[in-house]
Amino acid sequence: MKLRRLGEEGLLSRLLPSLQTRKEVIMGAGDDCAVVLSSRSGTVGLLKTDCVVEKVHFESLAEPAAVGWKAMMRPLSDFAAMSGLPEFALVTLIVSARRSASWIKKLYRGLQRAAARFDVSVVGGETSSTRGPAVISVSVVGFAEKERWISRRGGKAGDDLFVTGRLGGSRAGKHLRFVPRIEESRWLTKNFPIHAMIDLSDGLGADLPRLARASKVGFKVDVERLPLNPGCQIAHAISDGEDYELLFAVSHRHRKRLSRSWRTKFPKLLLTRIGQLVPQSAIRNLQLPRGYVHFT
Amino acid sequence: MKLRRLGEEGLLSRLLPSLQTRKEVIMGAGDDCAVVLSSRSGTVGLLKTDCVVEKVHFESLAEPAAVGWKAMMRPLSDFAAMSGLPEFALVTLIVSARRSASWIKKLYRGLQRAAARFDVSVVGGETSSTRGPAVISVSVVGFAEKERWISRRGGKAGDDLFVTGRLGGSRAGKHLRFVPRIEESRWLTKNFPIHAMIDLSDGLGADLPRLARASKVGFKVDVERLPLNPGCQIAHAISDGEDYELLFAVSHRHRKRLSRSWRTKFPKLLLTRIGQLVPQSAIRNLQLPRGYVHFT
Repeated sequence: MKLRRLGEEGLLSRLLPSLQTRKEVIMGAGDDCAVVLSSRSGTVGLLKTDCVVEKVHFESLAEPAAVGWKAMMRPLSDFAAMSGLPEFALVTLIVSARRSASWIKKLYRGLQRAAARFDVSVVGGETSSTRGPAVISVSVVGFAEKERWISRRGGKAGDDLFVTGRLGGSRAGKHLRFVPRIEESRWLTKNFPIHAMIDLSDGLGADLPRLARASKVGFKVDVERLPLNPGCQIAHAISDGEDYELLFAVSHRHRKRLSRSWRTKFPKLLLTRIGQLVPQSAIRNLQLPRGYVHFT
Repeated sequence: MKLRRLGEEGLLSRLLPSLQTRKEVIMGAGDDCAVVLSSRSGTVGLLKTDCVVEKVHFESLAEPAAVGWKAMMRPLSDFAAMSGLPEFALVTLIVSARRSASWIKKLYRGLQRAAARFDVSVVGGETSSTRGPAVISVSVVGFAEKERWISRRGGKAGDDLFVTGRLGGSRAGKHLRFVPRIEESRWLTKNFPIHAMIDLSDGLGADLPRLARASKVGFKVDVERLPLNPGCQIAHAISDGEDYELLFAVSHRHRKRLSRSWRTKFPKLLLTRIGQLVPQSAIRNLQLPRGYVHFT
């Protein structure tokens, strides 16, 4: 079977569970970051790798500093999803020998600016040549307090579902300049018992089912409530992908306090209740179009 | 200036020192692994990323399990160079949608077998499509005891230079099935005060000058002594690259004991004294052909 038909998720879900893991691995592949035992008292280690590929994640003529920014911010968005703090990054750069050194320098400047925004140190760099599209792969390690890291798994039927910001239309530009919601995520887990969280990288239509599946519940979304970016319609909010906003589940008992204190803390950033988690049997009643899926 | 002329090392040496780093970074880019403060008492954290690219590091028709093996073992060889112990790996796989799922499965099996050989857990996997050559990027984190990690920097004039194994001709097959010298490296630092060490990935002609430069000394090599693989000549040992053997510097006072106990411990693996480190002024008198250099 060709990859095109199998799809990335199908492939990974077949390969990854078979990987042996050490006892130090708390949660391996399958969530936003891997979670491992840390020797730093009271914390777990977090690891994440991600990449951007020319003509898949950015256009050949895109501003190189923006490409570097995006390459760094994508794995950092996964740290936001887990409420983790990133510390160190490793960068692999695979480019054609025909690229100018100035292109690379600008790319690195973007990577560096993004890393500095969250106090992350780029501690290693590797480059290699290719005759194909450019690839920038970034691996990040960091940590989270033991009682504070959030997976996709803890959602409960009856929980409210919230999203930050506005959805849709990211390809018009936001995908190259977004700021991962690390600050917001850290604030959330400091002040509320968040049950489950994910960052919206492939679109609500793909990422919400992932959260629900991992939590073994269903979901109900009031699509009329979805916070749309200007010029976007509901379908864009569901399927465009690359929003890099947070989607999280929290008990409805916190609804009022959450909404009120969010407005005080982040007056410029929308927080919208878009629906709720429901018992699993209800999941089949919903037909969300799927978000961006690689290999299709 | 195009990358082709600047070369990878020229580029990285210009970009990397400018990167800001946190105070937790003991040694950033520029050695085999990055070294960071660890909260595990008595240890430092080690991080390394590396990649293999189709048509650069492996032929398109190469056995996928061997390609996976190589992709994992390359960064592990950098752990050997620092006398570190790898723990967790993240894998990024960028392949054409035309590749078969069975190719990917075999590749993963090779990655997994290599990781298991050194008790490393693959905790994360990312895949993306490309229209270009396949890329497999592997990031590894691990640790070393504070008094035991070895950089390239500690060589002293007068030190003996040793290499493990035999050099040259790796492209005939060894580059796809080598075993990083982690066991040997750990034994060395347990039993001898090694001053400086590096793994021979780009060839003695490129890697020895790196070690000497980092140690601020010169070197003298008796090229007639170089341990050659069958069918290889001196030029191959110097320039072929991808030997993945260890090159290290140790005080000549340990010469006899080292040679004797090495033979007892590793009877099947050659250890050869190939020369010595000398005061820096002598470095210009030597003309070693350069090893494999990316982007040329």
